[in-house]
Amino acid sequence: MSTFNVELKRVIDDTYEIETGYELTEKLISDIKDGLVGKIKKFAVITDSIVEKLYANKIYNRLCEEGYKADLFVFEAGEKSKVRKTKEVVEDAMLEKEYRRDCCVIAVGGGVVTDLAGFLAGTFARGVPFINYATTLLAAADASVGGKTAVDTPRATNLIGLFNQPEKVYIDIATWKTLPKSQISSGMAETIKHACMADAEFFKYLEDNMDKIMQLDKEACDHISNKNCEIKYKVVMQDEKESGLREILNLGHTVGRAIETLSEYRLLHGEAVSIGLVAQTHLARKLGYMDDSEVRRVRNLLKKANLPVAIPEYIDREALVDKLYTDKKVRDGKLRFVVQYGIGSMVEFDKNNFGIEVSREEAAKIINEMEDENG
Amino acid sequence: MSTFNVELKRVIDDTYEIETGYELTEKLISDIKDGLVGKIKKFAVITDSIVEKLYANKIYNRLCEEGYKADLFVFEAGEKSKVRKTKEVVEDAMLEKEYRRDCCVIAVGGGVVTDLAGFLAGTFARGVPFINYATTLLAAADASVGGKTAVDTPRATNLIGLFNQPEKVYIDIATWKTLPKSQISSGMAETIKHACMADAEFFKYLEDNMDKIMQLDKEACDHISNKNCEIKYKVVMQDEKESGLREILNLGHTVGRAIETLSEYRLLHGEAVSIGLVAQTHLARKLGYMDDSEVRRVRNLLKKANLPVAIPEYIDREALVDKLYTDKKVRDGKLRFVVQYGIGSMVEFDKNNFGIEVSREEAAKIINEMEDENG
Repeated sequence: MSTFNVELKRVIDDTYEIETGYELTEKLISDIKDGLVGKIKKFAVITDSIVEKLYANKIYNRLCEEGYKADLFVFEAGEKSKVRKTKEVVEDAMLEKEYRRDCCVIAVGGGVVTDLAGFLAGTFARGVPFINYATTLLAAADASVGGKTAVDTPRATNLIGLFNQPEKVYIDIATWKTLPKSQISSGMAETIKHACMADAEFFKYLEDNMDKIMQLDKEACDHISNKNCEIKYKVVMQDEKESGLREILNLGHTVGRAIETLSEYRLLHGEAVSIGLVAQTHLARKLGYMDDSEVRRVRNLLKKANLPVAIPEYIDREALVDKLYTDKKVRDGKLRFVVQYGIGSMVEFDKNNFGIEVSREEAAKIINEMEDENG
Repeated sequence: MSTFNVELKRVIDDTYEIETGYELTEKLISDIKDGLVGKIKKFAVITDSIVEKLYANKIYNRLCEEGYKADLFVFEAGEKSKVRKTKEVVEDAMLEKEYRRDCCVIAVGGGVVTDLAGFLAGTFARGVPFINYATTLLAAADASVGGKTAVDTPRATNLIGLFNQPEKVYIDIATWKTLPKSQISSGMAETIKHACMADAEFFKYLEDNMDKIMQLDKEACDHISNKNCEIKYKVVMQDEKESGLREILNLGHTVGRAIETLSEYRLLHGEAVSIGLVAQTHLARKLGYMDDSEVRRVRNLLKKANLPVAIPEYIDREALVDKLYTDKKVRDGKLRFVVQYGIGSMVEFDKNNFGIEVSREEAAKIINEMEDENG
């Protein structure tokens, strides 16, 4: 009988830069030439069937022109592709084309692409570097800080994945012009969430400037992109493993994710989150942390961004309550919610504890109340 | 145009303990009761169809008796199960049984189980803790230090995976008695590899005590288990990301892995590595780093452990050379080998560079030479 101690304490530096700007392809190329990923000369450009033609092809071509080995790996656009099977197909295609550990993944696209490609990079040859080139507001708001990567499973979204930090993130505002309006709105849901939970002044800015933003005014877009990074970073840097503070990023997501799954992705992620944000304001009001006018402000801001604020007819309420129990945040079989405190802050129930248990009955009541109010 | 710096420098402490002993189930249970994984009360016991009846069932039952929620997740024994599909099936079964982030994985079995379950734990809900309960000599020698977890793909072994450190490793020597002799031999290949590359004295010990070891003498088993951990730790602790020194652990594996894949797993991992170890001694002799008597000592020690030292007839030599190029260590399309220096050390070609490029012709020559010598 003997024991051996494997001493493994070390400093990890995952620091990276997020660059926001217009048409950043040439900046990406010059960064790579300047050693962004060291001596790596092989680039797997992972993208979806829509972004391929719009932007990924151009990046791929420029890499080839500069003498790098590059290949495009394209999967069908849409949340339905964010599954283990797609990851497997891309992995096999990369192996087939002789990609091994000496390569870098470049994810070009929205949240689905950056989530999937970031996860894939983290397990390819036990981890290769990756770069995010974000082409949607949602990817800019949600996927650029925090290192969360994942795929969905039949039972729930984002349950298989990794914390994995990119080498650099590019947020190309020019790409937002090619997005459908619904995608702009979907991305705004995460931006509004950030304002709700952490920044009353920014919330006010959004109320005053939503029209400008929806018309993709350059200055306004640059501002919200930076604010998103700033707010998310403040939360995440204190808590990379999501044990305490980071849980507040879950605002609106407990109900949102369940609705997203049950809608079978007829609702975009941000659209589902928008409904979830409304749901949580009702909970907050019930618990005494928000008043009627604050609840209305959140609801109105979401509507200004053309986001839905009611649960669609086709979603069965009972099934929705059941679905809540498949959430990642469920602990010991009990529902947990984070709760907004007025506008711009969150309730801290105990030190480092931002979640509260909610009974099945309470959850069901909130969901039915929403129905009444919108009915 | 603006940039935002995501500062992410932090200290990670993945220190863990390896405990070697006889019948360690009760020790595992008492460690869990003493807080080995904090307040976690849900345990996914992952095992294979053989180990289930021998040991995993007992651990599962003891956990239930102690009031923990536990479930057994069993897949078919054998290297063929170490694939993405098995991971997916177990993940879905865990999600079905309401496992979420507040659980711990206990891997009970050999290298296939610990590799697969360790990888699965690393991506389940973006990472849950895991414990290895190693029931084979190979798992003890190979999988207990280093944090390498992975699955195989149709094109190559261990190419999709993670570096992921367990909470604790139990090496239960009592379990070795139920192993087929071929499994004991297979495990000895990694032990012999460790001696070849890092410890001449230990190599001598193995030459003198191989009979005792093969009869599973307790004291000898305890000694080799500890030596394995010690040698592997010394290499790994200096180089967790496998950039330099760690590459020497690849000794015998370049050819070994290729043979293993081409044999379609008729050869056990250690059996394939044994042939790979012989191959690398031929390379070392050709490069002037080993003499005839040293080459013979390695070969004889492997034979004493009942390991194969020749490439099986059914493996096509040309296909084998091709297969070498799918190795993880291939850089810029060039084969890399690490090279043994006498008995008990490795050639360092440059500072922190232990690999040497070998041309296709040289590799083919070595493979054919082996044939002659054994013909």
